[in-house]
Amino acid sequence: MNKTKLLHEGKAKKVFLTDSNDLVIQEFKDDATAFNNKKKGTISNKGVVNNAVSCKLFTYLSENGISTHFVEKLSDRDMLCKYLEIIMVEVVVRNVAAGSLVRRYGFEEGTKLENPIIELYLKDDDLDDPLMNDSHAVALGLATYEELDILKEQAAKINTLMKSFFAERKLNLVDFKLEFGRHKGEILLGDEISPDTCRFWDLDTGEKMDKDRFRFDLGGVEDAYSEVEKRVLDLK
Amino acid sequence: MNKTKLLHEGKAKKVFLTDSNDLVIQEFKDDATAFNNKKKGTISNKGVVNNAVSCKLFTYLSENGISTHFVEKLSDRDMLCKYLEIIMVEVVVRNVAAGSLVRRYGFEEGTKLENPIIELYLKDDDLDDPLMNDSHAVALGLATYEELDILKEQAAKINTLMKSFFAERKLNLVDFKLEFGRHKGEILLGDEISPDTCRFWDLDTGEKMDKDRFRFDLGGVEDAYSEVEKRVLDLK
Repeated sequence: MNKTKLLHEGKAKKVFLTDSNDLVIQEFKDDATAFNNKKKGTISNKGVVNNAVSCKLFTYLSENGISTHFVEKLSDRDMLCKYLEIIMVEVVVRNVAAGSLVRRYGFEEGTKLENPIIELYLKDDDLDDPLMNDSHAVALGLATYEELDILKEQAAKINTLMKSFFAERKLNLVDFKLEFGRHKGEILLGDEISPDTCRFWDLDTGEKMDKDRFRFDLGGVEDAYSEVEKRVLDLK
Repeated sequence: MNKTKLLHEGKAKKVFLTDSNDLVIQEFKDDATAFNNKKKGTISNKGVVNNAVSCKLFTYLSENGISTHFVEKLSDRDMLCKYLEIIMVEVVVRNVAAGSLVRRYGFEEGTKLENPIIELYLKDDDLDDPLMNDSHAVALGLATYEELDILKEQAAKINTLMKSFFAERKLNLVDFKLEFGRHKGEILLGDEISPDTCRFWDLDTGEKMDKDRFRFDLGGVEDAYSEVEKRVLDLK
């Protein structure tokens, strides 16, 4: 499968059209951004790690009944995916209070949530990805109520699967962001699942093992990404 | 019924305990605030208008099957109410895009929404009343999912009733905020319904007839409040 034309360049990935109308190639970059592009940098080898971690996770989720856009890993940085009409809604699932949940509602960081919090954000950099609810998403024409129910149901199932996946790897899945899209009448999980889009804390030490190390200049960014890759890939 | 003790002083009202454990008196003040207390002032006679308008609306809603805390109008500024354990959730219903909907999501002001948008906000001045969804409210221990369903159902019914009430009075009900509370195992509509808590636009001219005149220094604040009172009370 060959890249024929650049369809879209995002902050962390390029998406290319291919010889097939139904398939695209995601190429993972080392570029890192945070705080809606206000902070920019590079995390060496990040693209390779995130592609490997995402491929492994999409495979695991598919084997457990989740429909994803993943087709196969083509190379270190390239993932073959089904073409998606992206739903402009970011779905965030939270198991432990961190980040904006702490800032916005005054939760203490690290508070374990008895039930997961599921949030919808409008995917729009110009508006700073604002939080929204179902009625906003419908009024904005992004999705129907029925589609949003599917997104939230899938997100809850994915959370259950991912929590146990990462617990086996001594990682506490604090929160993560998902994106979905439409493909031939079906809603598929898209984008990536990686230390860019999840918060992982080491289960024993509580150490942050994700993009927060870059966001807050905690150091050891590359090491944290490599360690997550190692734990994800080494355990069969 | 006598005021025995000040229970709470808010930005626009005082609430007093009475000789009865089940009843409180809301006293409506002329104090006006906006932008979470950053702007302060007085709107002459506002307390009298808001009490009169609220009494009329609570009566109308009760007659149409909505359970409210309203018992009776005691005087120009005093309303007798059932005691509520307040649910710290503000429910906002929107029929037309204005205010934060424009700022946050880029709707053009005045866009008619095909379906009403219903929003939940955490009632917390220190946190600037942040938008939230059901899962936040539950995680914060504010209400159960079942209670939130009741709040949203009631809000939708109230919206239908209020839209027709105000249309008859040549006012376009743009959006409004509701508060609810628990009383003897039942959820009742509380607080007030007035030009402080609703946006009204004149149906013919589009002129703003509510607290936005104070917020944005549009002038004619007292006249707008009086005109709303007149239209609400004159039509039987």
